[in-house]
Formats: sequence, structure tokens, C-alpha cells
Amino acid sequence: MEEEDSRQLAETNAGNSMFAGGEEERDPESNSLRQPLLKRNRTLSSNPLAIIGAKVSHIESLDYEYYAGFAYFAGINLLLTAFASVLCVCFAPTAAGPGIPEIKAYLNGIDTPNMFGATTLIVKIFGSIGAVAAGLDLGKEGPLVHIGSCIASLLGQGGPDNYRLKWRWLRYFNNDRDRRDIITCGASSGVCAAFRSPVGGVLFALEEVATWWRSALLWRTFFSTAVVVVILRGFIEICNSGKCGLFGRGGLIMFDVSDVVVTYHLMDVIPITLIGIIGGLLGSLYNHVLHKVLIVYNLINQKGRIHKLLLSLSVSLFTSVCLFGLPFLAKCQPCDPSLSEPCPTNSRSGNFKQFTCPDGHYNDLATLLFTTNDDAVRNIFSSNTPREFQPVSLLIFFALYCILGLITFGIAVPSGLFLPIILMGSAYGRLLGLAMGSHTKIDQGLYAVLGAASLMAGSMRMTVSLCVIFLELTNNLLLLPITMIVLLIAKTVGDSFNPSIYEIILELKGLPFLDAHPEPWMRNLTVGELVDAKSPVVTLCGVEKVSRIVDVLKNTTHNAFPVVDEGVVPPVGQASGATELHGLILRAHLVQVLKKKWFLPEKRRTEEWEVREKFDWVELAEREGTIEEVFVSRDEMEMYVDLHPLTNTTPYTVMESMSVAKALVLFRQVGLRHLLVVPKYEAAGVPPVVGVLTRQDLRPYNILTAFPHLAKKNREKGH
Amino acid sequence: MEEEDSRQLAETNAGNSMFAGGEEERDPESNSLRQPLLKRNRTLSSNPLAIIGAKVSHIESLDYEYYAGFAYFAGINLLLTAFASVLCVCFAPTAAGPGIPEIKAYLNGIDTPNMFGATTLIVKIFGSIGAVAAGLDLGKEGPLVHIGSCIASLLGQGGPDNYRLKWRWLRYFNNDRDRRDIITCGASSGVCAAFRSPVGGVLFALEEVATWWRSALLWRTFFSTAVVVVILRGFIEICNSGKCGLFGRGGLIMFDVSDVVVTYHLMDVIPITLIGIIGGLLGSLYNHVLHKVLIVYNLINQKGRIHKLLLSLSVSLFTSVCLFGLPFLAKCQPCDPSLSEPCPTNSRSGNFKQFTCPDGHYNDLATLLFTTNDDAVRNIFSSNTPREFQPVSLLIFFALYCILGLITFGIAVPSGLFLPIILMGSAYGRLLGLAMGSHTKIDQGLYAVLGAASLMAGSMRMTVSLCVIFLELTNNLLLLPITMIVLLIAKTVGDSFNPSIYEIILELKGLPFLDAHPEPWMRNLTVGELVDAKSPVVTLCGVEKVSRIVDVLKNTTHNAFPVVDEGVVPPVGQASGATELHGLILRAHLVQVLKKKWFLPEKRRTEEWEVREKFDWVELAEREGTIEEVFVSRDEMEMYVDLHPLTNTTPYTVMESMSVAKALVLFRQVGLRHLLVVPKYEAAGVPPVVGVLTRQDLRPYNILTAFPHLAKKNREKGH
Repeated sequence: MEEEDSRQLAETNAGNSMFAGGEEERDPESNSLRQPLLKRNRTLSSNPLAIIGAKVSHIESLDYEYYAGFAYFAGINLLLTAFASVLCVCFAPTAAGPGIPEIKAYLNGIDTPNMFGATTLIVKIFGSIGAVAAGLDLGKEGPLVHIGSCIASLLGQGGPDNYRLKWRWLRYFNNDRDRRDIITCGASSGVCAAFRSPVGGVLFALEEVATWWRSALLWRTFFSTAVVVVILRGFIEICNSGKCGLFGRGGLIMFDVSDVVVTYHLMDVIPITLIGIIGGLLGSLYNHVLHKVLIVYNLINQKGRIHKLLLSLSVSLFTSVCLFGLPFLAKCQPCDPSLSEPCPTNSRSGNFKQFTCPDGHYNDLATLLFTTNDDAVRNIFSSNTPREFQPVSLLIFFALYCILGLITFGIAVPSGLFLPIILMGSAYGRLLGLAMGSHTKIDQGLYAVLGAASLMAGSMRMTVSLCVIFLELTNNLLLLPITMIVLLIAKTVGDSFNPSIYEIILELKGLPFLDAHPEPWMRNLTVGELVDAKSPVVTLCGVEKVSRIVDVLKNTTHNAFPVVDEGVVPPVGQASGATELHGLILRAHLVQVLKKKWFLPEKRRTEEWEVREKFDWVELAEREGTIEEVFVSRDEMEMYVDLHPLTNTTPYTVMESMSVAKALVLFRQVGLRHLLVVPKYEAAGVPPVVGVLTRQDLRPYNILTAFPHLAKKNREKGH
Repeated sequence: MEEEDSRQLAETNAGNSMFAGGEEERDPESNSLRQPLLKRNRTLSSNPLAIIGAKVSHIESLDYEYYAGFAYFAGINLLLTAFASVLCVCFAPTAAGPGIPEIKAYLNGIDTPNMFGATTLIVKIFGSIGAVAAGLDLGKEGPLVHIGSCIASLLGQGGPDNYRLKWRWLRYFNNDRDRRDIITCGASSGVCAAFRSPVGGVLFALEEVATWWRSALLWRTFFSTAVVVVILRGFIEICNSGKCGLFGRGGLIMFDVSDVVVTYHLMDVIPITLIGIIGGLLGSLYNHVLHKVLIVYNLINQKGRIHKLLLSLSVSLFTSVCLFGLPFLAKCQPCDPSLSEPCPTNSRSGNFKQFTCPDGHYNDLATLLFTTNDDAVRNIFSSNTPREFQPVSLLIFFALYCILGLITFGIAVPSGLFLPIILMGSAYGRLLGLAMGSHTKIDQGLYAVLGAASLMAGSMRMTVSLCVIFLELTNNLLLLPITMIVLLIAKTVGDSFNPSIYEIILELKGLPFLDAHPEPWMRNLTVGELVDAKSPVVTLCGVEKVSRIVDVLKNTTHNAFPVVDEGVVPPVGQASGATELHGLILRAHLVQVLKKKWFLPEKRRTEEWEVREKFDWVELAEREGTIEEVFVSRDEMEMYVDLHPLTNTTPYTVMESMSVAKALVLFRQVGLRHLLVVPKYEAAGVPPVVGVLTRQDLRPYNILTAFPHLAKKNREKGH
């Protein structure tokens, strides 16, 4: 919403300067010359460049007018892009891009630093306003999802970390599971706000974002999207007067195509299948090329801030050149007098833009290019207007947005993928509809909808959520069966070439995402073998010397250590020299112990009353500080720490004979960070814990690096 | 679909007998008398009883006519009920009821015998046709879900078990996980077929039916509902001519209310909240009373088949009496001439039934009662007709369907819960709309929709799936925000009183359903304590004597046994007397070993080539036969069996110090049947396995029985 408002603001500013300029040129002498110019001025008034017409009207050359118009247009766009890009580059690099892959990774158990902070939130909001207003080929949907998650995360932890603003009562949610839930709710609210699609938001969170799903989460996300939709509805009510710019247009349904009566019969199976197949092919091709582009961009971006900024600005300039120049290529079309819509239109969001055409004519490419991305979608979805767009114009539009979609996504501004893909897809869908001509009974507007859906499925590989989002966007329930088929075909075709775009981005970012399915070769490897290939496990005693703890923390990077008691007497069996696996202790807790100096002068266990008195659980929950910040004196080094009260005594364990595949299922299903491997032998002298497995140990890539013969076998099978 | 067709068939038969009767009475003498009768005959021709008018027209008494009509009506209903009930009682008792709780239990890991067999399928189909045609207050939705699952299950295992019809190539799916997936797809297809709601079907399977959910399952269910909807669409196309009776009416949208413009503003929050709260209250009250009724019915049904049958027949008789008698209580309403619909209507599914009223008038109660349940919903949802129904008629209708809904569900016929609850809810919603009068801008038809939704949520406690089902039933996207709020309020109110209706039925049926959430007190109990309270674990040696195996199988009822090797040499530690937990062996496999006599004369391990030669994995997968069927000779008793090749070497394990809560999470998340408990001590002489936990051990009720002090604490906390 904010983006659209700002876009309007930018245009209003431009409008003001037009009127300011208008004062100067009240020159009666040039009246005769100004007549045609004023007319053109009127016809172009929907765009900033049109305004220039009036300003420079005392100059006779038309060419100069266009150049000045372009300078104005490109200049404003460059400024807005620079604003967005500087914000992202200097203050919050994590705010660039859509943010959805990082949210997905967070919910899988991978925390990207500074992803959900207050700075990121602010930069994301204003950066997204700038980027969308700059007319770049990107959407506000991804950023809105990220914004929703940021707000959720900040609420969940009681306020921003770095600004020292915290509501203590909100700390109640400050645990891993509740934070995960609340961020899922935030993500679904973001989708709901972006598409005004409450059920679609819930399903998007379920299908694409979340890793663990509980039935309670279903109605919680549902509740949050219900709140979003009620507030949206309230704003739409308030904005009925038209004061809120583009917000409120379309009511709750953004791209309404419910006025089309959907008629189809058996023969339409062919074009529907075709849309699905082409959508799948184009989607996977898009993923493939975007992957390559992103690799190149990464190289450029790594060179420094200036390079990042320059890249954004050149993309913005290229976009401006194309948007400004291409409509001149299109021929003017005569208006169809049978249509009830006004034609030509010069208002901001009309369906038939006059541009440079004479009265009674319109420029169809200008209709698509000189408008916000949202309106472009609305125009291309427009139904019952079979002759509105020429094939050549649609082809130019499609080609342009293919190129823009590929080069815009990786620049350092907040950007979403949804809208670029919808724009591409709708153009190709409508083209296909045109090509079918009289062989089909389905309206061309619906072809555009189906094209958009198929390209989305071909690139993002979602099914149910896309289906519901498109249903809620277009409000045409009778289209549902066709949409379902198109989505399924496109997804299937796409899946046979490459993974979804989000998975590609996750891999590019190097995030250790854990997939739901273990690889088949993992069944032939035991966790025992996996642990043997690692460095030996470091265990601590139940009552441990301070010097050893400091030593272990300094010399290892593990985040958790098994705690083993030696020489205990088990209730059953022979009494001598049993060892007991007491549990797992976290590095963060050990650091806290050293910081708070909870030391004992002698080697003994703490009594229960001591534990209750001594330990402050709120302090313990703070996972800040590193071993380097801790100072321990020489005397203290000789003292002891009783680790028992701080140990998690119920860690999940697997036997060493367990297959990696099943261990991975456990690891992911239960949502673990550390998995203890215990021996299958029971005898004196056998260590009670064989090793600890972490997420990194279970990643296919890392296993294959440690066991090259498996990689070889795997490759052989693949061929 | 079949049910509706059969209903039509029943009516057509009745129609034939009318004409047969009509032949006889071509008696010119009685012409003057017959005039009013014929007229009434015409006005009543939509019902079987109407027909009687013609048949008995030579008798002067009107009263007698009505009695005969009633006899005809009640007789046919009784016959149809008897047909459905006899099928259920004699051939497949599992086909009675909706079947959804059992499907839910199956997907949770509890197999109800004969639930998905061919007999059940056939009885369910024909029984449901009979029960729905008999005019009982039950739906075909639940049975359709069960039918879908049955078909899926039969396809999944390659054919029916008992009819010796098997496709071998379909055995590919014959494993637990694929069968679960395929049954989930069947259930969602059932919902899709019942409500013509493809996305709703997917979400129903996700929210209500499935216990384990994988992302792959999402698009698989989506695919199956897409197929259903395409086939449905095809049939609707074919049936456009009107040859298919009630099927095809309404197209893909069953209860279309999209012609109402939804207008609402802030003040409507009050009635919306009210609908939600009352829906929640009524829903939980319904659950409570239905629970009591089902307990009484269980007592009756246990007495024998005749009692079951008599119960069904008396409910049918009561229904007939009410449906026939109550419309006489309603007053005739004059038709509203401003409406475009024909009034009064005498066709089968009209909105203004004339019944006994004079021309230009209609009987509103007859409109609701003398019709199929589907048409009753359609009539009560009818929008833009604010004066159509009198409050008294709606009140009678509501009270009647409350009673019928409670007494009909438990009888021995296939019955669904959806439609009775929708009927009740829509009546109360419309009543509320009437009561609001001019204080609201929302149409009364929408009030009925919201009332139905609220009662569903109040009783079944679903949110997203109900929301989408109602969206797809009514095709009014703008109603979505209100529906969401109503559903959430009703669910919240209902949840504060009692569990959902399906959980109540699960508990009544004694199915050991595992909930997703462990009880809070489970955190204070370790699995070690739980295992100690059980009888000691029975373990087998890696190479075991036949006599011991026979002994163990005969004297225990366990379904799996840990296999322990003694005196092995571990790779690390002291070499003496180590024991190794080799894995877990299933009772079914032991029985197979005894049956196939895979014995060894001496105590040794089998070589790998022997294993490959000897064991047939297809035979091993057949889990049939009991130990009683096995005969082992005295000589064979002294032989040995090598259990190693048959042992699952990678069972999931937990340490004895693990809390029951976390063990339960593991058990349910990974979908286990047996969970091994291993000791936390490592020493010579300690048994390598402490115990085995099963689903029954982890049920809260069973734990509380074994640990009464926990139950006491739990109760104290509750108060």
C-alpha cells in the first residue's frame, strides 16, 4: 500500500512542477504554436513525461520535448532507485531481494543475522516504496511478506534488539517455537495484504514457507489473515471517497474477471494443456537463466557498495529507456465504438491510453507500459475486449518483461518475484489466446490469467496456494477447474527440469536448508559411519573443572556438548565403573556460567535449594556473549562447575546402527539442532555417546564430500 | 450423486403408480366431486403423498386421503430405511455412520478391521442411497468421503482382499505410507465430490483427516480433486439436457448466493459476532447432547441386530410423521408479486410450494420440508427474499431438525453430519436475520449461510477448510471476511466447552487416537518410569531356539520383540561380555519363519547367500496367520532360527531419562508403532534395552491408570 501511495506522491510532485512551469508560458505570441502541443500535453498527462510538453512549449522542436521528457522521467526513476538502493546497501543489505527464501530458511532452523531487525524493517518499507515507485519491474509482494515477518518477529521478542526498546510482557513469546509460529503468521499476513487473499495467505505459508506444520498453526495463521482482511476492508471503506490514491481500487478483489462467463468444452483441453506445458517450460527456463544472472550479479555485488549502486542505477536507466521508447514502435489503434469504456483514456489507469495517437485512437503498448505494474496486469487481464491488444505489442511487452524480470531481480533493492512473473505470464497467455483465434471459446482475459498462473507454477512450483491466490485475485470460481489443471501441468513440467526458484536462491545464498526427503543413498550409510568420519566428540563431566570448560570453549566451535558422569552406580547390573549419559549442554549456557561465575570451590553437586537460589532463568535465556568476552582468573580456573542443573537431560538420541535417512527424518520432523549418537553395545568401557550430529553433518553435499565413493555411486546411478 | 438419482427413481415409481391409479378413476359421475381433488392433486404433485389424491379420489372423505397419503409416504420411507439398515446390520456394520472418524484414526495409525473392504464399499454406496432417499435427516457427504477412501484403499492394495481379485502391478503401493497417502487422496476426493469443492477437499484432508502431512501430499490430493472436478464438470456438461435428475443442478456451485451484493459496515460487527457466539454455543451443546444420545444408542445397538433395525425404523417413522404433519401447522402466505420467480411453485425444487394453499399463496414450511435436504438448504439460502419465511415456520423447522439431527445420526445406516448441521445452522441464521430486521444491511440468505458456517465450526471446529468449502458452495468471495470472523469466533467459543464432534466419536468408539499435543504433566514422567510400571520386556537372542520363539509367541501378545546379541566383542572398550541391541523383530515375521520352517540344525548365523536364496520378501510381507495355526514338531523345537536377517536394525530409540512428552512427540511425528527404551548407563551387565513402548502405553488415560498420583495432581490442577 505504502508503495502505491508514494508512487502517487511522485506523480503529484511532477504534476505540481507542470503547473509551476505552466505559469511561465502564458505567452500570447506562441498561442498558435501551442495548440497542437497542448493537445499532446493533454493526451500525455498520465505520465510525468507528458508534463514536460507544457514546460518546454515555447521551443519549437518536438524532438527536444521528448528528450526533456525522457530526462525528467529517467531522472525521477533514477533518484527513486538510488534512494532505495542506498538504503539497502548502506543500512540493511538483508533488506534487498524478496526475503522469502530467508524466511523459509528461518522456519527450517537457519537464522540469517539481521534478517528480522527493526533496521531491516524500516529499510524494507521505504526501499520497497522507492523501488516500486521507480517503475522497476519488481513487485511489492515479496517485500510485504518480509515486512509482515519482521513486524511479527519484533512483536514476538518484545521489541527491537538494538534500540533498547523492549516490552517485557511480550517476552512470553520469546522462545523458538512461538517465534517460528508468529513469523509464519506474519508471512501469511504479508501475502494476504499483498494480494488481498486471506486463504491464499494461509496456504502460501503452509505450502511454501513453513517447514513444521501443526494444526494449531492453521487457525492461528487464519486468524491473522482474518485480522488483515478486516483492516483492509475498513481502509477500503474509508478510502471510498478516492482520497487514498491507488489503494482501494478494485475493492477486495484486485484483478476482477468475474464478469466473464466461463464457457468451455472438451476441445479446450488442448489450449489448456498447451498453456500448462509452455508455462512449465518457460518457468523452468526463467529459473535457469535467473540462476546464471544471479551468479554474475553476485560477482559484481561482491566488489563493493559502489558497484551495487551502479548496477541498480544502470538497470533503472535501461528500464526507463525501454518504457519510454518502446511505445513509439506501436501503431495507433482505432477505438472500438461498441465498448462501453471510455476510449481513448488519459486518466492514470485507463484501459486505452491515447499517448501520441489522434482522437478516437489509442496506443496499446502505452496502455501496458505507461502505468503501474498493478494496472498493467489489470489491463492485460481485461476481458471481453478481444481486439484490444495487437500481437506485436504483446510480443514486445513479453520480451521486454522477460529481460527486465531477469535483470531486475538481483539488484540491491527490495524486490518481489510475483508481479514480474505475473506480467510475463499474462502477456504470453494473452498471446496464446490471440493465436488460438476462433478455435477457442475462452475469453482472452482468461487466457492471460491462466498464462500468469502457469508461469507462476512453472517457476515457483506451488499448487494449492497459487490456485487460491488466483481465485481470490480474480473472483471467478468457475475458472477453478481449469486453473487447477494448468497449475498441475506447469508444476510437473517444471519439476522435471530444475528445482523451484526459491530453492535455487536458497542454494545460491548457501543456506543449509534441510529437505523433507532423505536421498535414497542415505539408507546405505549409518550414523555411526558418519560420526566416525568427524573429529572425535568432546564430552564434559557432570562436575567439570573451570579450566577445562574454558579450554573446550576456546578450542572448539561446537554449540553443544554431551555431559557424561563417570563411576556411577546403576540400579541394575554390576556395580563397578558405569558411565551415564546425563544429557547435552549448550555453549551459550556454558558462557553464561563463566560470565556469572557460578563456580564451586570443591568438586560436588549443587543442592536443589542452591539451584533455586542461584540461577536466574531469564539471564540464562539470553544467548549473548562469546567466550572471548569472559575473563576467568587463575584461581577460578582451579574451581569446579556443576553442569547438572544446566544440562538438557532429555536430548533425542539414535543408535549408531541407525541409517542416515531415518536420522534425518527424526532430525527434521522433531526440529532438532543436535542429535546424539549412542552405541549399540552395552559393556564396561564403551563410551556412552559416540558422537553428535548437527544440521551441517546431515546435509547431502557435506556427506558426499566426506564419503566420495557414495558421490561416485550416486553419479553413476544418475547417468 | 447416486443417492439423488435413486431418490428421483423412488419418486418416479410413485409417479407411475399415480398414473396407473389414474386409469381406474376415469369415472364421469364423480367429475363434479373430483374437481377440487384434482386441483389439490396438482398442487401436491411434487410429493409421493400427493399422488394418492388421485388414486383415492372416489372416496369423499378428505381425511382418509391424507391418511392414505401418509401411509404411502411413511411406507416408502420405512422400506428404504429398512433396506439401508439391513445392509448395514447384516453385511457391513462398519458402513454405518459417516466413517470419517475411522479414516482419521487409520491415518493416525489405528486400523479398524473391515473398514476399507469391498463389502463395506458396496454397502456404503447402496445404504447411503437408501438412507438419503428415505428422507432421513442425514447427509451423503460423510459417506462419500468414506466411499472415496474405500476406493482409494482397494486401488492401493491392488483389489479386494476377500474376493481374490488382485491386480499384481498395483502392489507397488502396498506399503503403509503409500496406503496412507492414497487414502488421504480418497478422502479429499470424497469431499470434493460431495460439495463440488476441490480446494475445500484438499484442506479438509489436511485440517481434519490427516495426522502426518508432507508437502508432496498437498499436490497429490490437489491432483486427485482436480480429476474429480474435471469429471464432475464433464457429467454436468452431459447432463445439461436435464436427463440426470437432480445431478447437475447448480452446476459446479451448489448453493449459489453470488447474486447478492454484500454490503456491510461497522455496525454489522454486532450481529456477526452474535452469529459466531451462538453458533459456538449451539455447536458445543449439540456435541454434548449427541454424545449422550450416542451412549444410549450404543446400549440399544448392543442388544442385537433386531434392536438396531427397530431403532432405525422408529427414527424413520418419526421423521415421516414430522415431515408430513408439521406443514399443516404453517399458515398460507400470499405470493410477493414483485419477485421474478414463479409463485406458487409445484415443481420438485421450487422456492414457493403451494401445498394445501389456494392459488397465489404458498406454504413456507412445506417449501422447506417437502423436498430433498439439498433443496431445503438451497431454499433457506435464497437471497433477496426477506419475507419468504415466517419466523414461526423457521422456528418449527429449526426445532425439528435439532431433534432429528440428534436422533438420526446414531442409527445403523450410512450417515453424514455435514448436511444436518448445515440445515440447523441455516435455520437459526435466517431466524437471527429476521430478528435483526432493519438493523442490518446483510441479506437474510447470507445470514443463513453464516449461521450454517458458525454451527459447523461450533461442532466440527474446522476453520480454513470450512471457509473454503463455504466459499466454493456459495461463490460469494466478498462474504469471505465475514465468514472468517464467524468461523473463528464459533470455534473459539466451542473449544472452551468440549472437543470436536469427531474427537467425541473417536473416544466413544474406543480408538486409541494419539493427539498432537502431549499433556503438560507428561513432562514430569520419564519413559524409564513408564516402562518400569509395565511387565518386563521380553527379548530374543540373535540366534534363538525354536522352542523359545514358540513359547514367547504363545505366552505374550506383543507385536514386536527386541533382538539382543550377547557376548559380542565391541570395536571399542573392554573385550569381555558386551551385549548388543541388534534391533526389533515383528511377531508377523516370527510367525512366517515358523510357518516356512526356516530352521537351522545348529546355532550359527546364516550366510548372506543363504539369505538371498531362502527368503522370499513377498511372502514375508504377508502379515497373515497366527501362532495357533503353526505346527512345530518336537524335533524342530530343538532347532535354531537366525533372526538377524529378519530384524529391523534401525528402530527408533529413546533414553530412559527422556520425558514421556518428548517421547510422544517422536512417536507421533515419525509415525511409530514401537519405540525402544535404552538405558542411560553404560556398563557390563546392564541390559541394552529397558523396554518397548507402544501406542497404548503412551495414551494419557492408560498412563493415568498406571500412575494414579499423576491423575490426582492433574485433577487438582484442573479445579
